[in-house]
Amino acid sequence: MSTKKVILETALKLFNERNTQSATTNHIAKEMGISPGNLHYHYKNREEIVRLLYIQLKNESMLRVEELPKSIAELLNHEKVLIQIQWKYRFFFKEMLFLFSRDASLEAMYIEDNIAHRERISHSIKTLEASGELSFPNEKRFEFLIDSILMSWQFYASYRQTLGDILDVESVADVLEHTHCALWPYLTKTV
Amino acid sequence: MSTKKVILETALKLFNERNTQSATTNHIAKEMGISPGNLHYHYKNREEIVRLLYIQLKNESMLRVEELPKSIAELLNHEKVLIQIQWKYRFFFKEMLFLFSRDASLEAMYIEDNIAHRERISHSIKTLEASGELSFPNEKRFEFLIDSILMSWQFYASYRQTLGDILDVESVADVLEHTHCALWPYLTKTV
Repeated sequence: MSTKKVILETALKLFNERNTQSATTNHIAKEMGISPGNLHYHYKNREEIVRLLYIQLKNESMLRVEELPKSIAELLNHEKVLIQIQWKYRFFFKEMLFLFSRDASLEAMYIEDNIAHRERISHSIKTLEASGELSFPNEKRFEFLIDSILMSWQFYASYRQTLGDILDVESVADVLEHTHCALWPYLTKTV
Repeated sequence: MSTKKVILETALKLFNERNTQSATTNHIAKEMGISPGNLHYHYKNREEIVRLLYIQLKNESMLRVEELPKSIAELLNHEKVLIQIQWKYRFFFKEMLFLFSRDASLEAMYIEDNIAHRERISHSIKTLEASGELSFPNEKRFEFLIDSILMSWQFYASYRQTLGDILDVESVADVLEHTHCALWPYLTKTV
């Protein structure tokens, strides 16, 4: 693996173990046994590393429109994949709003991607409504469900942590259960 | 107002405008026109200030059990009060998980309070179930609703920000609409 790539992986590990502010570029270099100068040859600063990790996260989680879930079972399967990604980059979800307050370009990029992500969820749910698997009494409940699904992906793990739950890659899958409960009032048949 | 109190108010203002890491104790002292030494006479460090602001937040938001909402209308009114508090201390909700990673005693205190808060919501919803305003097909949906209400209070404003919405004290009240939508499948009559 190239040094450039190992720096990203090491940063991700340290960010997840502690937080982005206590893992400086010097700490990352030290952990790898390279000089800070060598690290800075590859990356300008920590902000650049965080942005690149976010772009990785995004590329791993993005589905093309033709791959969007076409059934409730596919939707829950896709959520399962997203939860693994959420866990892999958990520092980002914990610190998101704080990171935005330090890096306006990261915030702008995230917001653009997140609006597109919400669009894709909306598109999937409309497909499931058209195929008769879901039914909504009105537009408000439809929008509410989209918000519930997206907010759970972004914040359910954080929420559980604020109740003292020690999360691991298995337990974060509870978000699936949470999403299933959110879908339940709109299901036309039991899944 | 005492210097001690003005320091807390100034810190709150700066934390909300930027973030806790870019508002150092020196910035807070400078903003007030006092010396850093004077500030440190009152507070040991920024962590102590954050903890005291959190305790204020908690004291303002806590309801005694005898004051718990006894109807859906009272519940939504209580949410309205909580949203004002959420807005007043918005830096805390944005940075919560990050702050916990820097201050284990703050995290421990928050978790204990949050578990108690969840208990109080659970108690209120049970009261509304007993009085016939709400009805649940099973325990899982009941627990899901409690999680939805608590998670919305903690993270709905953050969620909206990740979609690029510029929030103010009025627009955060959309969380009320969100809570109402969460309650809707379990209401026995239209509210």
